[in-house]
Amino acid sequence: MTAIVEVLGELLVIFLAAKVGGELFLRLRQPAVIGEILAGIFIGPFALGLIGVPGQELLDFFHDDQAAAREGLSLVLESIAELGVIVLLFFVGLETRLADLLRVGIRSLLVAVLGVVGPFVGGTALMLALGYPSMESIFVGTVLVATSVGITARVLRDVGALDSREARIILGAAVFDDILGLLMLTIVSGIAVEGKLQVGHVLWITALALGFTAVVGGLGALAIRRFFPLIVDRLQIEHAPLVVALALMLTLASVASAIGLAPIVGAFLAGMALAEVAERYHLHEQALPIYAFLVPFFFVVTGARVDPRLFLQTETLWLALAVTGVAVFTKAAGAALGTIGFAPRSMAIVGFGMVPRGEVGLIIASIGLSLGVVERPLFSVAVVMSMLTTLFTPPILVWLLRPLIAQRQREFAGRVPAGE
Amino acid sequence: MTAIVEVLGELLVIFLAAKVGGELFLRLRQPAVIGEILAGIFIGPFALGLIGVPGQELLDFFHDDQAAAREGLSLVLESIAELGVIVLLFFVGLETRLADLLRVGIRSLLVAVLGVVGPFVGGTALMLALGYPSMESIFVGTVLVATSVGITARVLRDVGALDSREARIILGAAVFDDILGLLMLTIVSGIAVEGKLQVGHVLWITALALGFTAVVGGLGALAIRRFFPLIVDRLQIEHAPLVVALALMLTLASVASAIGLAPIVGAFLAGMALAEVAERYHLHEQALPIYAFLVPFFFVVTGARVDPRLFLQTETLWLALAVTGVAVFTKAAGAALGTIGFAPRSMAIVGFGMVPRGEVGLIIASIGLSLGVVERPLFSVAVVMSMLTTLFTPPILVWLLRPLIAQRQREFAGRVPAGE
Repeated sequence: MTAIVEVLGELLVIFLAAKVGGELFLRLRQPAVIGEILAGIFIGPFALGLIGVPGQELLDFFHDDQAAAREGLSLVLESIAELGVIVLLFFVGLETRLADLLRVGIRSLLVAVLGVVGPFVGGTALMLALGYPSMESIFVGTVLVATSVGITARVLRDVGALDSREARIILGAAVFDDILGLLMLTIVSGIAVEGKLQVGHVLWITALALGFTAVVGGLGALAIRRFFPLIVDRLQIEHAPLVVALALMLTLASVASAIGLAPIVGAFLAGMALAEVAERYHLHEQALPIYAFLVPFFFVVTGARVDPRLFLQTETLWLALAVTGVAVFTKAAGAALGTIGFAPRSMAIVGFGMVPRGEVGLIIASIGLSLGVVERPLFSVAVVMSMLTTLFTPPILVWLLRPLIAQRQREFAGRVPAGE
Repeated sequence: MTAIVEVLGELLVIFLAAKVGGELFLRLRQPAVIGEILAGIFIGPFALGLIGVPGQELLDFFHDDQAAAREGLSLVLESIAELGVIVLLFFVGLETRLADLLRVGIRSLLVAVLGVVGPFVGGTALMLALGYPSMESIFVGTVLVATSVGITARVLRDVGALDSREARIILGAAVFDDILGLLMLTIVSGIAVEGKLQVGHVLWITALALGFTAVVGGLGALAIRRFFPLIVDRLQIEHAPLVVALALMLTLASVASAIGLAPIVGAFLAGMALAEVAERYHLHEQALPIYAFLVPFFFVVTGARVDPRLFLQTETLWLALAVTGVAVFTKAAGAALGTIGFAPRSMAIVGFGMVPRGEVGLIIASIGLSLGVVERPLFSVAVVMSMLTTLFTPPILVWLLRPLIAQRQREFAGRVPAGE
């Protein structure tokens, strides 16, 4: 049980670091999320080592197996971080109405498709040009595909821009992007294993992913409006509306991940379906404290994953920087192209909003590694790419969003000051 | 990362099971907490195995090390459960004012002392009578000492009796009980290791534990009233009051456990200190959603620890039942004796409220095991005792609390119906 106490200490350090970092950055007139990520880098296992390094209690718990202790601790922190990002996207979903997403639906689809094709073609071409085998090149292209929308969603919320047209396009595109990423992975890993395209399997995955998104996204809101009050009114447990909402969040996150989609897509769809009844049942106000408690864990743990030693390996560093450059440029350009006709700033917001790559790329890289088509140094390259796109997107987005932030502040100043 | 998805699935199952179990028991006019514990037994690794049994993803994560995977998963679930019980006692603290505790302070101290002496003497005597060596007998006596107040606090809250005199005596006694338990452990394990009483060390631990409790309990509320508004008003982070409150909760829980006290004692003291400003900053309303989300994990995981196979080992079962009988009788009688002069029902409520033993006894048993003064079968005996006192206390308490519950319902019916 003392191992649990050690974990408790880590959670305390993470929570304090998140809030101190967030406060510091708010005072610098920057969004809190940047402070939380930087706090994570500082206290992480590769810097100060305040978190992620098992102490004696955890070593005892794992019978002095150093590797198992480190992995066990990482499992705890990553699990709570995942819960945090699920709550974040659930919350963003609660603030999003299907009708608003549908209004920009075609744009979102366009942004997603171009933002997937660009990095895939760019990444594959770069690797082929550098003389890598074709299968390995295609895997690297696939690694560059999937956007991780958590970072962008948090920045948009921090600056109060979640209800902007750009935000809606990004959120819709993130859902499509996730489906496309899953298809790419299915196709590419199928070819790598079987040597040929498995049409039946790919069609099945496509149908499943599209079906889930269409049914939950399209009918979810209707079903909630019809059945949520009936269910909730009949339950005797305390806080039945919040409990049912959280149960739906966890359920759809799990179903999404069972299909192969990101859990956060399920959580986002759950939130969006509940947006219909959120006001009536105060879901928003009730989700906020859970947000304040759990979401910071995601960003600190994300920062703590940053391993500066990877930037010291000069032999792979140049490749990593080249791949990152391609990843940023092709995603931003492709996604921005999907909003052609918009003001240049809006195009840039959408473009850079889609840039952060998260764990999906790393999952693909590790599958490639286990299939033997990707070499180990390329895994480090994928990690560096994921770190850099995560770290540098928030400041760029904030810079691009300045006029919108200023406008929001003017609007806010015009209102009656709200209470606590 | 797919290991995280597997953990997410476990969390979903736990949450759903907790709420279904809770709802079921509410419909049977029983407190939700009993349903949550029973749900945990059902889905636990020793019954249906829906939780606590690592699947392929977790096995992969731990390189096919079955033991490490099981321990890693258990670490995640136990950590989140611990967070749950910390939130529970924090919340109970928010509903408790120091003045109310002080008014029954002498009674609480009496209840704690008699409730510690009884089981220690009774347990030691039983083992000596059965022919066990004296050191081993003393260890078993020590195992029976420490009350784990989480179960009782939840039952009292579920039935709306947290503000009764009995509840306050129990809560105060739980704090003293924890200090006494720590002292007993320090003394006994000191004697076991060094062969003699280490007076200096024992005095140091006593001073530390008493000092922490007195300073936080006594001056905490004053300090909060003076400094909390100053700090909170200067912070720019969202939900600053809640954030500072949660930070204090985690900090005091960690400090308490660093001293050797239970983390929940620190969390309770944090909540009590904040009770002064809870209304002004809506801490109570904001803590409720976190309570609804996290607390059930503690009770389901508590249930999931129950291993029915232990009851099939007939050679230790009789000893286990005898020890449990002594544990229940001596604690209930001792604690009840501390409220002599009260109505018999009140004495019984306080007595049985102190009966549940949690992980502290198991920690002591495992220390005895590692020191070589306790034999392995006696560890199973301690586990059975902990399980039985946890399982059977809630229904007994509910039965004893019936008149109070009925009175609360009459009061409630007389009020204007409150909204959501």
